[in-house]
Amino acid sequence: MADKITPRSEDYAQWYVDVVRAARLAEYSPVRGSMIIPPNGYELWENMRDGLDGMFKATGHRNAYFPLLIPISFFAREADHVDGFAKECAVVTHHRLMVDADGELIVDPEAKLEEPLVVRPTSETIIWDTYSKWIQSWRDLPILINQWANVVRWEMRTRLFLRTSEFLWQEGHTAHATEEEAVEETRKMLDVYTTFAEEWMAMPVIRGLKTAAERFAGAVDTYCIEALMQDGKSLQAGTSHFLGQNFAKAFDCTFQNRNNELEYVWATSWGVSTRLIGALVMTHGDDKGIVLPPKLAPTQVVLVPILRKDGNEAVLEAARKIEQMLRDAGIRVFLDDREQYRPGWKFTEYEVQGVPIRLALGPRDIENGVVELVRRDSGEKQSVATEGLVETIRKTLDAVQQGLFDRAKAFREVHTNTADDYETFQRIIEEEGGFVLMHWDGTAETEARIKEETKATIRCLPFPGQFEGTEEPGVDPVSGQPSKGRVVFARAY
Amino acid sequence: MADKITPRSEDYAQWYVDVVRAARLAEYSPVRGSMIIPPNGYELWENMRDGLDGMFKATGHRNAYFPLLIPISFFAREADHVDGFAKECAVVTHHRLMVDADGELIVDPEAKLEEPLVVRPTSETIIWDTYSKWIQSWRDLPILINQWANVVRWEMRTRLFLRTSEFLWQEGHTAHATEEEAVEETRKMLDVYTTFAEEWMAMPVIRGLKTAAERFAGAVDTYCIEALMQDGKSLQAGTSHFLGQNFAKAFDCTFQNRNNELEYVWATSWGVSTRLIGALVMTHGDDKGIVLPPKLAPTQVVLVPILRKDGNEAVLEAARKIEQMLRDAGIRVFLDDREQYRPGWKFTEYEVQGVPIRLALGPRDIENGVVELVRRDSGEKQSVATEGLVETIRKTLDAVQQGLFDRAKAFREVHTNTADDYETFQRIIEEEGGFVLMHWDGTAETEARIKEETKATIRCLPFPGQFEGTEEPGVDPVSGQPSKGRVVFARAY
Repeated sequence: MADKITPRSEDYAQWYVDVVRAARLAEYSPVRGSMIIPPNGYELWENMRDGLDGMFKATGHRNAYFPLLIPISFFAREADHVDGFAKECAVVTHHRLMVDADGELIVDPEAKLEEPLVVRPTSETIIWDTYSKWIQSWRDLPILINQWANVVRWEMRTRLFLRTSEFLWQEGHTAHATEEEAVEETRKMLDVYTTFAEEWMAMPVIRGLKTAAERFAGAVDTYCIEALMQDGKSLQAGTSHFLGQNFAKAFDCTFQNRNNELEYVWATSWGVSTRLIGALVMTHGDDKGIVLPPKLAPTQVVLVPILRKDGNEAVLEAARKIEQMLRDAGIRVFLDDREQYRPGWKFTEYEVQGVPIRLALGPRDIENGVVELVRRDSGEKQSVATEGLVETIRKTLDAVQQGLFDRAKAFREVHTNTADDYETFQRIIEEEGGFVLMHWDGTAETEARIKEETKATIRCLPFPGQFEGTEEPGVDPVSGQPSKGRVVFARAY
Repeated sequence: MADKITPRSEDYAQWYVDVVRAARLAEYSPVRGSMIIPPNGYELWENMRDGLDGMFKATGHRNAYFPLLIPISFFAREADHVDGFAKECAVVTHHRLMVDADGELIVDPEAKLEEPLVVRPTSETIIWDTYSKWIQSWRDLPILINQWANVVRWEMRTRLFLRTSEFLWQEGHTAHATEEEAVEETRKMLDVYTTFAEEWMAMPVIRGLKTAAERFAGAVDTYCIEALMQDGKSLQAGTSHFLGQNFAKAFDCTFQNRNNELEYVWATSWGVSTRLIGALVMTHGDDKGIVLPPKLAPTQVVLVPILRKDGNEAVLEAARKIEQMLRDAGIRVFLDDREQYRPGWKFTEYEVQGVPIRLALGPRDIENGVVELVRRDSGEKQSVATEGLVETIRKTLDAVQQGLFDRAKAFREVHTNTADDYETFQRIIEEEGGFVLMHWDGTAETEARIKEETKATIRCLPFPGQFEGTEEPGVDPVSGQPSKGRVVFARAY
């Protein structure tokens, strides 16, 4: 029996928790802020990983692995970096447990580490320490490495996928001989993330630059993609950082350039995480459950045979034939022939889990050479011919993929507004949510004041060409000071 | 320039370290006992992971993810388990760093956790805590889950891949309604490991049961595969544990059986780790470097164009054609057309890295419609026709894969001896190494005495049919007591 799902209109936050649980994507663990990712959630992550990994490799990157535990002295080397992460570090201080006189299992006080180790919240420090040993000459550059790993950032208030103490992610770390090349890499990886978000996740994103206040700790520039969730809040879905020579200087990583001069290496880092699963849920989900884009769905088609008291063998045989036919065509199909559950129960189950297409097959259908097809995104039901089914399924999967993107994009367009005065801005943020384009004077003071008064932050300084008129100069309505252009505000996850 | 490699005959341990470093499979990190796995090593692990993962999925398992940090109270629940792991746990005690009055970055004493957390050394405890919530009825069984993860076991003496504080692995954790089914699963996964070791790694293994002294902490029975390294030492390459109801009892995990009775759930766990990379190196490597079995080699064929001062375009064009042809045939080929390195340098480099086949192509070869082919395993060099090259490469890759297995198996046969008296046993262990089959009385006392006196341990009680006569009863020559059969002794990694 499916768990109850609170309607979105009633309580969006509760809907999110209900859906994530009912679809068995994740659950809280006994360790505060950590989550358990059951197979349904993990297989979705595997598909995301494989999709991204293919793109990383196609752009010349190779995977590697660096240690989980990092000496705290490494963090001390880059001032902004330590400021950003010191408050949320899980720290290993001992290497042994023991049973005390009362028979209790305790931390062995004799086994204290000489230097405490931090469970990586991100790996710039350990990686730049390594690169300083790997790099001597321009011939050693560029280094284009990515790591798939778990990281820990101690969080007091957590939400499944969106903000958890431990999460899974990838972190790219590249080293370059020139500033120009490093900036180009930063932008290129933002392009990769954009493609992934829009073409795989069917989730339209805005691309732009973060303000200094929202920048990664240790970066010169942070680029981001931002997606709009159904409740009108923005979600940062991926970031790509131009690190300048900050980490190279902190770890004394120099190289001999082509003119035999010693220079500091230029750096980038970029990452996306299991947070994307939360974004996916909140972009496409509805009151019945999650809705998965076909390109990422672990099961693209579920096939439910309608079994009666007798004559089931013919139905099962026909179902197995269809299953085989679809599988041979490279479609991820699952035949749910379990007899202990009724078809209606299964229908609900796969709706909750967001399987893009459901096929049902009964004795009458076989006689007529058809199968019942239901699209998860629209609920549309049709009877389609078994002959040519592969082609029908392929087209339908494409249509669902495109349909989800179009719907999300239309939603975003409706929920993107322009404000010319602060009152209108405040009203929109409070009542409608969504993105608001408004002039900003470029100061941290105004940015902080707006955040304080409206809980809206500058999501990004958008790249040109995404919205009309954002590049035109004007006046910041909050401070009355000149503005170079409109920026994107929203409340955010 | 390739790093110097100590010959195996001179110092096997040093050879191992040299080869792992020269082939850029791994290096030590600044954190004691942790390693960095550069792309060459990590891509090998990716191929191992993908090979195993395919077999796990084909046997009905799904991947999931459980938290890295485990409350210490969980460990206290299973007595043997805590005994086995308490001495090697990395313990998180704080969740914040701070800058002290002297400007030093320190652990914030105010941020002490209420309950210390252990960085998982293995996940039975957190997983069985979870299963106790997931399982109510026989309908919820079996649960067949695998996790790919990093684990930490604090080690004082470490060796790259073989024994490191942090390593990567997979851990399967399954839950069953009956003892019979759980035992069957334990054996089935040992079969999977055997197939992987022999057919993918080209590494013959002995299969058997561990003695109580060598059993996993918390298991009823531990099955293992053991491989013989070139220095005559055994290496445990994979283990599969029948856990009985131990963890179910510790975490109160019961289910309603078909007769509506409450029963404890039956469990298994099984794992292999990055240790396999060490095993691979020590099974096939030679004084020139590592030797990779084609099924796992990230690069199966390297193609080196012989470039002169001029006329290179024709060579490069022909090389690119060959590259494309092989790639289209699904062969993992790499064209090394870098001009800053000479062909001789490249030849050495790919020898060190163990690429199974090297092709070289010069202007003369193009005229003659041939390409030079060198097998890494034998060093055999031949001129082969470009026409039909795909077929030649395929056959050669198969021949290398089979050849490596045959060679390792022949080595093992030569280094497997039978001893009927303790003096002979001691002499073989000391002078020749390898596996020694000897009667054992089944007592921990005799086992401990032999270990103490010879450093040899019982690697396993071999499954029947692997060696002649191991099932026949006899007399333990050490104790003079009756023995049910011969067991496999060796010094081990």
